Formats: sequence, structure tokens, C-alpha cells
Amino acid sequence: MHQLGSRSSDGTPRMKIGYVGGGSQGWAHTLINDLAQCEDVAGTVALYDVDYEAAAANAKLGNRVVDRADADGDWTFEAVRELDDALSDADFVVCSIQDPPEETFVHDIDLPKRYGIHQPVADTVGPGGTLRAMRAIPQYREIAATVRERCPDAWVINYTNPMTVCTRTLYEEFPEIKAIGLCHEVFQLQELFAEIAERHLEEADDVNREEIHVNVKGINHFTWIDEARWRGRDLYRFLDDELEARKPLNDFEPGAMADASYWVTNYRVAFDLYDRFGALPAAGDRHLVEFVPWYLDLDDPEELHRWGIRFTPSSARRPDEGPSQTERYLSGEDAFELSESGEELVDIVRALLGLEPVETHLNYPNEGQMADLPEGAVVETNALLTGDDVSPLTAGSLPDEVRSMVETHVTNQKTLVEAGFDGDLDRAFRAFLNDPLVTIDRAAAAALFTDLVEREREY
Amino acid sequence: MHQLGSRSSDGTPRMKIGYVGGGSQGWAHTLINDLAQCEDVAGTVALYDVDYEAAAANAKLGNRVVDRADADGDWTFEAVRELDDALSDADFVVCSIQDPPEETFVHDIDLPKRYGIHQPVADTVGPGGTLRAMRAIPQYREIAATVRERCPDAWVINYTNPMTVCTRTLYEEFPEIKAIGLCHEVFQLQELFAEIAERHLEEADDVNREEIHVNVKGINHFTWIDEARWRGRDLYRFLDDELEARKPLNDFEPGAMADASYWVTNYRVAFDLYDRFGALPAAGDRHLVEFVPWYLDLDDPEELHRWGIRFTPSSARRPDEGPSQTERYLSGEDAFELSESGEELVDIVRALLGLEPVETHLNYPNEGQMADLPEGAVVETNALLTGDDVSPLTAGSLPDEVRSMVETHVTNQKTLVEAGFDGDLDRAFRAFLNDPLVTIDRAAAAALFTDLVEREREY
Amino acid sequence: MHQLGSRSSDGTPRMKIGYVGGGSQGWAHTLINDLAQCEDVAGTVALYDVDYEAAAANAKLGNRVVDRADADGDWTFEAVRELDDALSDADFVVCSIQDPPEETFVHDIDLPKRYGIHQPVADTVGPGGTLRAMRAIPQYREIAATVRERCPDAWVINYTNPMTVCTRTLYEEFPEIKAIGLCHEVFQLQELFAEIAERHLEEADDVNREEIHVNVKGINHFTWIDEARWRGRDLYRFLDDELEARKPLNDFEPGAMADASYWVTNYRVAFDLYDRFGALPAAGDRHLVEFVPWYLDLDDPEELHRWGIRFTPSSARRPDEGPSQTERYLSGEDAFELSESGEELVDIVRALLGLEPVETHLNYPNEGQMADLPEGAVVETNALLTGDDVSPLTAGSLPDEVRSMVETHVTNQKTLVEAGFDGDLDRAFRAFLNDPLVTIDRAAAAALFTDLVEREREY
Amino acid sequence: MHQLGSRSSDGTPRMKIGYVGGGSQGWAHTLINDLAQCEDVAGTVALYDVDYEAAAANAKLGNRVVDRADADGDWTFEAVRELDDALSDADFVVCSIQDPPEETFVHDIDLPKRYGIHQPVADTVGPGGTLRAMRAIPQYREIAATVRERCPDAWVINYTNPMTVCTRTLYEEFPEIKAIGLCHEVFQLQELFAEIAERHLEEADDVNREEIHVNVKGINHFTWIDEARWRGRDLYRFLDDELEARKPLNDFEPGAMADASYWVTNYRVAFDLYDRFGALPAAGDRHLVEFVPWYLDLDDPEELHRWGIRFTPSSARRPDEGPSQTERYLSGEDAFELSESGEELVDIVRALLGLEPVETHLNYPNEGQMADLPEGAVVETNALLTGDDVSPLTAGSLPDEVRSMVETHVTNQKTLVEAGFDGDLDRAFRAFLNDPLVTIDRAAAAALFTDLVEREREY
Ligand SMILES: [Mg+2]
Ligand SMILES: [Mg+2]
Ligand SMILES: [Mg+2]
Ligand SMILES: [Mg+2]
Repeated sequence: MHQLGSRSSDGTPRMKIGYVGGGSQGWAHTLINDLAQCEDVAGTVALYDVDYEAAAANAKLGNRVVDRADADGDWTFEAVRELDDALSDADFVVCSIQDPPEETFVHDIDLPKRYGIHQPVADTVGPGGTLRAMRAIPQYREIAATVRERCPDAWVINYTNPMTVCTRTLYEEFPEIKAIGLCHEVFQLQELFAEIAERHLEEADDVNREEIHVNVKGINHFTWIDEARWRGRDLYRFLDDELEARKPLNDFEPGAMADASYWVTNYRVAFDLYDRFGALPAAGDRHLVEFVPWYLDLDDPEELHRWGIRFTPSSARRPDEGPSQTERYLSGEDAFELSESGEELVDIVRALLGLEPVETHLNYPNEGQMADLPEGAVVETNALLTGDDVSPLTAGSLPDEVRSMVETHVTNQKTLVEAGFDGDLDRAFRAFLNDPLVTIDRAAAAALFTDLVEREREY
Repeated sequence: MHQLGSRSSDGTPRMKIGYVGGGSQGWAHTLINDLAQCEDVAGTVALYDVDYEAAAANAKLGNRVVDRADADGDWTFEAVRELDDALSDADFVVCSIQDPPEETFVHDIDLPKRYGIHQPVADTVGPGGTLRAMRAIPQYREIAATVRERCPDAWVINYTNPMTVCTRTLYEEFPEIKAIGLCHEVFQLQELFAEIAERHLEEADDVNREEIHVNVKGINHFTWIDEARWRGRDLYRFLDDELEARKPLNDFEPGAMADASYWVTNYRVAFDLYDRFGALPAAGDRHLVEFVPWYLDLDDPEELHRWGIRFTPSSARRPDEGPSQTERYLSGEDAFELSESGEELVDIVRALLGLEPVETHLNYPNEGQMADLPEGAVVETNALLTGDDVSPLTAGSLPDEVRSMVETHVTNQKTLVEAGFDGDLDRAFRAFLNDPLVTIDRAAAAALFTDLVEREREY
Repeated sequence: MHQLGSRSSDGTPRMKIGYVGGGSQGWAHTLINDLAQCEDVAGTVALYDVDYEAAAANAKLGNRVVDRADADGDWTFEAVRELDDALSDADFVVCSIQDPPEETFVHDIDLPKRYGIHQPVADTVGPGGTLRAMRAIPQYREIAATVRERCPDAWVINYTNPMTVCTRTLYEEFPEIKAIGLCHEVFQLQELFAEIAERHLEEADDVNREEIHVNVKGINHFTWIDEARWRGRDLYRFLDDELEARKPLNDFEPGAMADASYWVTNYRVAFDLYDRFGALPAAGDRHLVEFVPWYLDLDDPEELHRWGIRFTPSSARRPDEGPSQTERYLSGEDAFELSESGEELVDIVRALLGLEPVETHLNYPNEGQMADLPEGAVVETNALLTGDDVSPLTAGSLPDEVRSMVETHVTNQKTLVEAGFDGDLDRAFRAFLNDPLVTIDRAAAAALFTDLVEREREY
Repeated sequence: MHQLGSRSSDGTPRMKIGYVGGGSQGWAHTLINDLAQCEDVAGTVALYDVDYEAAAANAKLGNRVVDRADADGDWTFEAVRELDDALSDADFVVCSIQDPPEETFVHDIDLPKRYGIHQPVADTVGPGGTLRAMRAIPQYREIAATVRERCPDAWVINYTNPMTVCTRTLYEEFPEIKAIGLCHEVFQLQELFAEIAERHLEEADDVNREEIHVNVKGINHFTWIDEARWRGRDLYRFLDDELEARKPLNDFEPGAMADASYWVTNYRVAFDLYDRFGALPAAGDRHLVEFVPWYLDLDDPEELHRWGIRFTPSSARRPDEGPSQTERYLSGEDAFELSESGEELVDIVRALLGLEPVETHLNYPNEGQMADLPEGAVVETNALLTGDDVSPLTAGSLPDEVRSMVETHVTNQKTLVEAGFDGDLDRAFRAFLNDPLVTIDRAAAAALFTDLVEREREY
């Protein structure tokens, strides 16, 4: 791309953002909030969603918010009926989509459970993640093909899971695409280190997550940290003390988490893995247990509570009944208050426009940032974003044992993408069999796989 | 080495073989048998064993056999009391050693069983293989150091398990060593393909194992085959039919193997893995189940019978009481009959002396023969042996899923060797935790590991 | 391929050989000679040549020879008018082609000379080799495409230069092709080592080239040797003495070679490179000087004589006038005597048919045999040929400086093949500029390149 | 290092800088200038030099300057007599050393000239660079060993040439060292792109070098650029126009540069290389011509003027007579004016202290930033510097031809460092022979090498 956006008469860059999944209740609201407060960039947001009505409601909400006196942003929102229209001449494309959970996610969790395979999240790996990947690949091929056609120089920012497979699919379909994948998971660990700084360093009070510099490496939801600093002071050296203070790690009672939030994490699994391998995983425990074989071979699901986490029942994945959040905002039932969202999207847009560099962790094809993982695999590391450029920072190597575990998943992700492009269910089944959670008999695995594929065939 | 052996007046090469573990009841007898029939090479065999008496008895037996009228070989056997003496000026060194099983092997099998970890063989991977590796590393460092000192140009031929770790240790201690590791396991699969040739090809009757050319790749006891031919005719294409004919694969009854040989294999696990990943493992099912997570997570050990194999109880590892085989031969209780042993050792010695080239599979550091595994890892592939040279044949790549499984073990083997050289038990424990059979809790694993290390500390 | 050839009633394998370039005066006669003496394989040879008459004359000669009483072979020769017919259902394809030298080779040598670039051979690298590669690539694409269409399971054996580019083109066009490239150049060095064995080892008299085992590594005409043995005895250790005995290396007088054979080599350049880098090049000096920058930067071409070699004038490349060798054989002017040709082709055919394994050096895509060169580059190393299989032997690494020189040519060869497939003259020109012999100004190089391309456009 | 520097009572970080080569007339003055204006860091600078008097004079000058009213910095300078003292407990180490040019540099240039080898700079590659590397390696081993002993957590910042070899030596001697190499050469190309921006983009006036973002890759003085942007706008696309505007490139007259500055560059060689290979070298033409074989094979040195550059005669390398610059400042003959130096050192110190991140290009061991060059080679790419951390940015791959040229020098640098550590002159001579400028006969090269080594043996 030679020039992102154009300039209005006062020099403010103007651009178009195409939003795929623009009918969402979460991301779309955050985007409205952040753009309403963004003064130095202006433009339009084209919201596309398979649920057009939801997109239209968000457009209405967006326009209403930016017109308010407390909003400084100069933005227009519109809903469009075709993906082509959303992406046509876009400068940025944001993707955040989800299939109807009641027809997909519910099966991803409940069918494997019948075979004794329990998954707290089921969106990245395991049977659920595998199926989700198989559904996402054709959707992401279509997005990439439309980008090639309508806005080949646009930056594509993906938020959808399975993050790694979706991002890899974009590059596989259109190798010249400029796409990154963003995920919040590492933020939690930065917050943990902010607490550690406050606890161990006299001069540290009220440390902000953004001040914590961590060296991120691995793949999404199975990233690892081996350096952490606050203003150049090493925080990583305090982890052994932190580990001791938490021991015994799995001392919660079965049942103890019955009333906890589905999303709670106590970092007990993360510290157990740190204790095993000497590097600290940078994702919530609910994710981590799905990547390795040690935590989910349970007779009674409540046993998982020992680690301070719980299963999210598939029922929690079904949409609530009643008016949506957008509807509640539009009806005035809830007030839409402008706030500091903590979301990086607008900062990233500004960086790519050349306004101010940003360093953050993101998902990107490996071109050397993780020299001990295969080239072309989508990995998660730090990167520097400047005008029209994303350059990953080299992250160094992983402990051997960790690398071998990560590489198993990288292999499966590659297999799934290849299988998706070739429409080869047998090949996809190989990845399914090689997943650490699929410890059942090959025949049972075949039955489960077939069952899952059948139920979700249309997605 | 500029010249292996010397020449006697009639031009027959003469050489010295140093035999480490020369008191054994199996290998030593085979070697006596084969040398007694070897006409074109002559020399001496120095037998060294921690059990000197056993070595002396074998020396006596060897000399008695080669003096018989039906023996053509010109060889002398002697027992020596020091490793240094066995290896001094040797042209070849043969290693085949075993710790007292009643004090090691028994624990390797029985202690893990208490934690629910069942191992049919326990000599390569899993808790038993890990401990065995930890015991072998210092022994093999000593052998390599003695080779460096006493016979740096000798060829070292290893038969001891864990094959990969022992061979890697030799190279780690003395990088210029000329060492290979030999194992019979692949022979069985060649025999299976000989049967397949006879079954499917009209022109094939009475096919000999040695006529079967297979492309071998992987690591010892977890090798894989993806090409098989008899006189240039492809046999691999018949595997799908062979698989179908064996289905359902795990249809033996629990208990069905109660009276079977401990060493029986029906290739049901091998075909299950072929069905999963499209390449055929080239090792007995007893070994295969220890490398992957799918077969040994049993409530009742008899369940393993479904796959046509059984556990070898630790009692079977204890030596029989009464006179040893050597003693029975010497006393005349058993007759020592010269036979065609099928053992390759003498052919390999002849090849390395420049008499006749040999192609066989062997264990050797990776220098490109397996381009998708790390350089320096000891791998098992075909090789060509000519005068003073071993050159591996390139074996091509493994299916992605298989490579990722093999690489997990390669990683653990590397870790174990490094830990062994540094005397770092914590590092060894990481490999232990990363083993596919160690699915138990980290605390339980630590207890098991400590327990094993304690009991076998002196070996 | 599941089965090469068929079987006649007496069990002798029967096959078809398609010969591309079958009108030649050299190779075709050797093939006739060797097949006339080959008893255990029978079949037909289809001779194809752009000069149909020459092919027809060879067919006539071939049939006449095999009918003679002193010929044991059961073979039929026929000339065909289309490549398709030559290759249809072939079991083996032999390629040995040459463009009319008076319209190509002459320019390859004479035009660069005007720019001060002298080339003794001009068939592999340098301006001549580059142009020859550009002419060969479309021809070899056509051959590979015809193999895919007409005989996808056949083994293709190439003798044409530039060997590396021709062989790489075959694989680039049809990745499943089974092709090897054969070249005699290394044989000369084996003969040199045979002499060295006789000179230095008491027990060695009358050593045959085939008894010399050398470790071959590199690319065609720029291969290197770092191990040499005769019956397991190291010969490489004598090279330092041999070098001293030849010093000073470049002590021939300018003019001294004026009457020598064009093809003479005294290994003075080879020993100079051995002296520089510690490995011995395994090609004639005429080839070697074209791969490196040190020998051909001459004011007066006679200066090259110092190294014991001379330039082959382009006139020597023009065909002789008068009746061809085939015509002289057919007319009875010359007698066709059966002889031991020393050519390996029939042995290789027999090996691939599963009759008897052969170890030789050959050109083949790198799959690990040269771990320090890029995967997929066509390299020259030893290989073992058995029934329907070619497996390269790992050759280990090159000295760093040698590797960097070899890699420069590997890079250029890759560039040329890519440029040839894309029809991209600019890309080809980059390889031309990166050639060590092209030391002239970029503008002059562009003029020379354009000139060469113009003159030879139609080939 | 857990904490760089300490804090004074007002919270300003305080630190010690050890300056090796602190008697210099250039760098030391710039450092004094910059520290005198640095308000948010304070501390001491220990100046060490083999010429103690020069260091003492600089210390005196430094203290005098920071005491002036217009200086805000709180710094103390002291000269020390031992390297140990300079580095003891240092937080930063700055290295900028030079052997007496009249006894080294002069030979580096003049001796090769007698053999027809002309070098404009002679400090990085070529005979001069090779010898300079051989002299520097023991010096840099001593520095690294002293760092290990006296200040293992310090950041070491090297400015000495040959940059790559010096930096690599530091890591080879002390692998845990935290060292970077800084060089200005790329700045010139950023300035060129600033001009290009002003010329081609309407909105760009008065563009500052620092606003130009270039993707830097390669090795010091042979770095390349393949992306250039100003505020996110692509500038690289204008290079073809810029090239055309400069054609013919080598149209200066011989003699035309006779009165030019020795250091002049017109980017004609850089554009010629861009024309050849499609990437733009990011170093002055004087350096570039030494890395490739095309420009320095001259009969008359004045021919080099065609490219808009000239040779620096060795006489220009001799120190001027009369009082040094320091002496002139101290005597008041010249006034020391505080100015904006453009030097990055103080910014880099501040970044590593955690005050403000800096992105710049620097020399650092390859850990993936240049995935197509060997791991561990010291390469030059962009990097992000934050609190106690340097993380290179991945730079992507080079054009194949460029990579092969760069790799030749990487190979030589590796060889030189190995030879330097082993004290192996033969090995160093191999690198010498493999240098693109050493096109002379091996015997002549040996004579030149021996001559150079003799004359400079004591350094
Ligand atoms: Mg970049
Ligand atoms: Mg070899
Ligand atoms: Mg093969
Ligand atoms: Mg870092």
C-alpha cells in the first residue's frame, strides 16, 4: 500500500474501516466508544454481519454516540448487506465473527463430553477447537479473497478464534495480505507482573499493565513468557517466590468453584507448568489445560476445581434471551457511557497510519521471530507497529519440552489448514487424532469426529 | 583410522574385538557361533564383564568351540578383568551390557505400576526407559572415554538399550568416535512384508527377509516404514488390504493373552498407527504402545490383551535359577550346535574391513538422513557400510503427526543426555514429565521419580 | 511404479528404453555396445532425435550389431519421429541431447571472448553455461511433461549439460519424476587415487578405479572429495605429499600446451584448490577454473597454459566434415568392435530392475545428503540404487569457504530455472551478473547478454 | 542484570560508563557534548586508553565542560590506567579504539596496492579488513573477559571496526555478554530518502532523517534496504525514477575526484547494485566496492573516479601533526560549543535504563532477525531498545544473489574469529583467499599475507 487513507482539508487522515461481524454486542460497542474519543483520525465504519439487523442497530447506535457533545470523533457508521461492500476500498478490515453458538459451540462441548473428553473453552484446540477451525477456514478464505479483490492494501485485524488457524488461513489464501491477529490473553499476565512489581519492589506503586514489558513467545492461548521487566527492573526472578507462596497448587476443593465466574483463573495451572518447565505460560488456566494431557483426564468434572477453575457449561454459550445490549442502549434502558476501554485497536490504527509507534504482542506468520518453530506458522510474539509496517521482534527459543508441545499444535494447525483447503476430511481427522485431548480409542474418535462433522456440516 | 587390523602371512586380516558385557548368555554365544564359521577374518576376542567369572566361562566355551573340527574360524577368546585391557588396541568394540535386573528392571516396572503407569517393556521410554537411560549414561561415558584413550580408531558396535541414548552418549563424550547401534526390531517387519509378498505376488515363493527392501526412518523402537519392495516390486500398496483383513484390530479378549509368550506381537497396534497416520511403524507392538498416549491408560492391565499383546511381569526379568546356559554348554548338559544365526555382526565387521559392502538399518547421529529431525539426534535409518566407512542413506520426511511424536522423544533423549552429563536431576525430571506415559499429577510424578532414583542410585 | 518392465517366458525382464538424442555419435554407440553384451535383460530401444536420419542410422547399426554372433543381447532398435512415441510406455528414458554447436556453442565461446571473458568449456557456468541453461530449460520441460503424460513411472537418466539445471528442470516441471543425472567427471579422480594407492601402499598393485571409494559432495563439475579409501585403507592422507611433489603448481610455460589435447588435465588447479581450502575438487581443471574467479582473468589466453590446460577453440566444437562415425561403421569403413565400455548405464538399469545393487555418484535433488546446501537443489553425491529406488548417501558438510562458493552457483542455478519457467529475462540476467566469470561492467554485461540471447533466440 | 545504575536522592538514575579508547579526539568529544546536555541521567565516566595522557586530557576537558553554566548534566570524568578499573562495576561500556594508524593502517593499504589490490577504506573486508580483524580479535577477547570479570551485567556498546568481527568476538568470548554494535553508515541513506520524500511527495517539506523508516538487513557496511517509508508513505517505489535520473551511473571522468573529499559518495555504486539485484545497499560507495568483485579491478586507480569516489591515500590515515583537538580545546585555541550532535548514544543509554524506548539499527547476533543467514552471525538490522532489553526486529530475506554475496563475507568473518581464537594463521589465510578482492595467485596471496602479518605482528 502506498498510502493508507486520504487527508481531509485540515490534514486529519480519513479512512474506511470494514467491520466483519459488525452486529456483535461486545467488540462493536468498544469500537464505537473508542472512535467516539479519537480526535486525530476520522472516517467511516461499514458494518457487515450475517445478521444485518444487528449491524444496522449498531450503526444507529454508533452514529448516535458520535453525535453526542462528549464525543470528539468525526466518524460515520453504516450497515451494509454484502461483504464486498464492507471491504470495498477499505483501509482497515476488522474481523470478529461467531457462528450461532446454539448450533455449533454447544455440540463442540457436549458431544465430546459423552466420550469423556472435557473442555473448559473448546475454541482453540481439542475436539471443539478442531471443529471450530474446520468451520472457520472457508469463512476466512472468503474474507481473504474479498480483501484481494476489494482492498488488497488494507490492514486486516482479526479477533476471531481459533486465532492461529484463522490468521494462517488469511495468509494461505492471499499471501500478500497484511493481517495481524489480536488477543487479550497476555494482558492478564502483565497484570499479574504489575502486582508482583508492587509486592517486591519498593519503588513500585500503582504499576500499570502497560508498563510491564514481557517477552512473549509461542502460539495463541499457549504463549509463554521468559522475561518480565518494569522500567528495566527484572521481575521474572521473583517467580520462584511466587510459586512457593502458592503451593500446594491444586488445593482447591472439588466443588469450590461451583459459584465462581466461568472465566475465573488463579494461575495455578500456569505456575504448575512453570514449575515443570521453567517458563511461565501467558494464558488463563482454562485455556492451558486444553493444550496438554495432564489436567483434563477426569472421572468427575468437579475434580477440575482443584486447580481453581471450572468448566463453562454449553448453556452459558447460548445467547441470553430478551433485548440485546445494543437494543438496551438504543431504547435507553442502559446508558452508553464513554470510558477508557483499554482496547488497543485505535492505537494500532494510529500506529499503522504513521502517527505514533506501538509495541504490542500479536499473531503473525513466523519469519524468524521464533527461530525454533517452522517458518510460516502463525506465532504470537511482540511486534513493533509503525507507518504501514508490522515488524515482529525476535523472541528467542523455548525450553525444549515446551517447544515440542507447541510444535505438536503447530503441526495440527498446519494439517487443519491444508485439509480445509483441500476439503480432505481424512487429513483433518489425523490432526484430530493427534490432539492431546483425544486420548480415546481410534474407533471411538472416528465416531465422535463423524458425529461432530455431521451436526455442524452446514457451518 | 588408517588401517583396520593387520594381515597374517596368508593375507587374512587379523583383528582384536573388545567385548563389553562379554559374560552374557545370549550375544556372546551368537558371536562364538558366527566367528567359528568365519573363514576370511581371524583374531582375538577380549571378553570383559563386571561378572568376570561369566566372561571367563564364555572364553573357555569360545576356545573350545573354535577348536572343534566343524569350526573353520581362527579365533582366540580371553577374559580380561579391566575395561582398559579389553579395549586396548581393539579394532572393534562390541557393547552389550545389562545391570542386574533384579535390582533395576524390577523397580523400573513395579514402582510406576503403583502409580497406574503400565509398561510392557520399560527399556526405552516411559519411566523405566528414563531411569535406564540415567543409569546407562555414566557407563557409556566411561566406554567412550576408554575408546578415546585405548583405541580411538576402532568401530564401536552397540546393542544395549536404551539404544538411542547409549549411542548418543558415546558421541557426546567423544565426538570423533566411530559408533553404530544395531537392533533387530525392524527384521520382524521385513518378515511381515516377506509374507505379504508371498500372499500377493504370484512370482514370489519362499521370500527371504533379506530380500525385502524397506525405507526405515525414525528412532530406535519407534521407527517407521513408508516404502517396501521385493526385487523392485512395490509391496507397500498392499497394506490397505492387509489392514482391512485385520479389522477390527483390537478384538482379542481381555485374558486371551494370559498364556501367550511375553514377546508376542500381532502388529495390531502397528496397523492401528498405520490407519491413523499413513505410515507403518517398524517395531513390535509392545514397544509401540510405550511411545504414544493411546494404549496404556488402562484400569485393568488385562485390557491390553485386546491388542494381542501382554505385559511382561517384572518376575520374567529376573534371571532363572540353576546353571547358566554357558555352564550347561560347558558341562555338556546342552550341546552347542553351529547354526546360521541370522545375526549381522560378522557381516558388518567384514564390510568395515573392506571385504564386502553391507546395507542395513542402524542407529547413527543425524547428518541429513532425516532432514526433518534435528542434526545430531541419533536416528535409525538404512546405511551403507564399506571399508572403514558408514554412510547413512537419506530417508526423506515423516508424516507431520508422526514427526511431532518422534520429536517429542528426541527432545527428551537430548534432555536426558544433557542432564546426565551435568548430573542435573531437575533437568532429567523435566524429560520424565514430558514423557507421554507420565500422565499423572506433577507431585505424584515427583514422588515416583524420587523413589526410582533412590532405589537405583548405585547403578 | 509398481513394476518395471515385464517378464518374457524364460523369466528375463523385458523393457523399453526411450532414447532422446538417439542420433548421437558417442553415447548411442556405447549403448549399442553394452546392450549387445547384456544377457539378463532384453527389450527395445526407441531412438528419437531432431535429426531423424541420424537416429535411423543408429537403429540400423544397433540391430546389425546385436544380430552378430559375438553379441548375446536380445534387443531391438527402432527410430521414431516423435518424442511421444519414444517415451510411450517406456521403462527407462535416456537423455543425451545437444543443440547444433555451430549455431550455439560457437557463440557461447566467441562472444564472451570479445568482452575479455575466456571459457575453456562453457557448458556449465559462466556466460556459455548460462546461455546453454536458458536453451535447455524449455527442452527439458517438454521432456518432463512428456514423461508425465506417457511414462510417469519410468526412470529418467540424464547425460546432458548443464547437468544440474537440466535435472532440476525435470523435477521442477514434474515433481514426481524419477530422474537421475550421470556424469563421468569423478571417474578421473578415482583413477588418480588408484595411482596414489599403487604409489603409497605396498599391498596395492594394479588398482581398479572401481575399487576406490570416495566421498563425493557438491554440484556437477564442482564436486569435492574429502575421503578416499581402497579396501578400507585411507588414501586421503597422502594428498599433502602429492601436493608437495607437484609444486610449483603453475609452472608450465605459456605455449606449452599448444599441441596438447583440448581435454588434457594435470590436476594442477585441483591441487591448488586443495591447497587453498583443504578439500580436493573432483573435476577436470578445465571445468574448475570456470567456477572460481582466480584463473581466467587473463590478458593473453596462453597464460592459462601455466596450469597445464588449454582453451578449446570454438572451431573444435564444430562437427567434423565427411561421413559420421555411424556412417563409417555402416559402410564398413570402421569396424564396430565389442568392448568393455566402462559405462555404468546398463549396471544402473539392472540395479533399478532389482537384479544387483549399485553404488555410484549421481545428481539428485537434495533431501539431506548435503545438509549444508538448500533442500531441493540438485547436488552430486554417492547413492545406492536398488530395485526401483535411488537413495542418496549423506555426504556431510563442505569446508565453509567451499560451501560459500558452491552456494553461489546453486543460487544462480535456482534463479535460472525460475527465470526459465517464468520467461523472465531480467531475472536470468541477475544470475548472469552474479556469475564469478562476469567481472565486467554492468553495461557491458548487459550488452553481452543481449547479444547472446539474440543470436541464440531460436534454440 | 537486575537493575542498571542506582538512584540518587532526587530519583535521577546514576551510573558508571567505562570508556575504552577514551583518549580519542572524536567520539570522546561527542560524548562530552551529549552528556553535558543530558539532564535525566547522571554519573561518572571512566576513560581508559593505551595513551593515558590523551585520556587524562579528555577527562580534564569533560569536567571543565560540564561545569559550565550552559551545561545541565551532572557528570564526572576521570582517566584510569587499567582496563580493569575502567570496567569495574560499570553499567555501560563504550568501546572505540584504534591502533596507531601509521604502524597498521598504512600497511593495510600500501602493501596490497603493490600486488594490485586497491582498497578505498580497508577497515572491514579485503586484505586490510582481514588484517585489522586479526589485530582486533585478541583485543576484544580481553575486553569481553574483563566485562565477565568486572561488570557482567553491563551493556557494551561498540563503535570499532571491523564492527562485525569485533562484536562477534565479544559474544564468542563471553556468550552472556549484552553487547551491541553501532554504526552511522545507514544514516546517510535515510538522508537520501528524506530528499526523495521531499522531491516526490507534495506534503513532505523539510523531512528529518529520523522520520524515515527503512528496513535494514545484512552485515555492517554491506547492509541493504528494501522498504522505506515516511509517515507510512512508501518511498521505495521512487527508486526506479531516481535510478534513471542518475544514468549513466559511472560517467564521472577519471581525475574528476582528485580534489574531492576522501569521504565523498554519490551513491552511484549503490544504484548500480540496486540496478543489478533490486535492493538498495545502505552504505557509502567507498565501502560497497570492497565487498564485491566488480569495481576495484583497476589498472589505473583514477579509473575509480568514474563512480564518483576516490581512494583515501594511506597518508590521510596518519595523524596530523601539531596539538590535538583536545589540546586545542583545553588551550582555548578552539572553543568547545555545545551542539545537537545527532549521536544516538545517550538516547540508547536512556532507553536501556527504561526511560524511553528507541528503535534503531544495530549489530547483534542473529537469532532469527535474518532467517536466511546463519544463526549466531552478527548482522545489522533494526531493533527495539527498552529497559534492559534489546530485541531485534525481523527483517525478512534478501534477494538470492545478495544473500549469496553476504554469506561469503559471513563465512569469512566466522572463519577469522575461529582462527583468531585458535591462533591458527592457516585458517585465517583461507578467509583471506576467499575474499572477493583477493583475485591474485595463491602464491602471491601467500606472500602478501605473510608480509602483512609480519609487519603488524605486534598489534
Ligand atoms: Mg518490516
Ligand atoms: Mg561417509
Ligand atoms: Mg528411498
Ligand atoms: Mg528480548
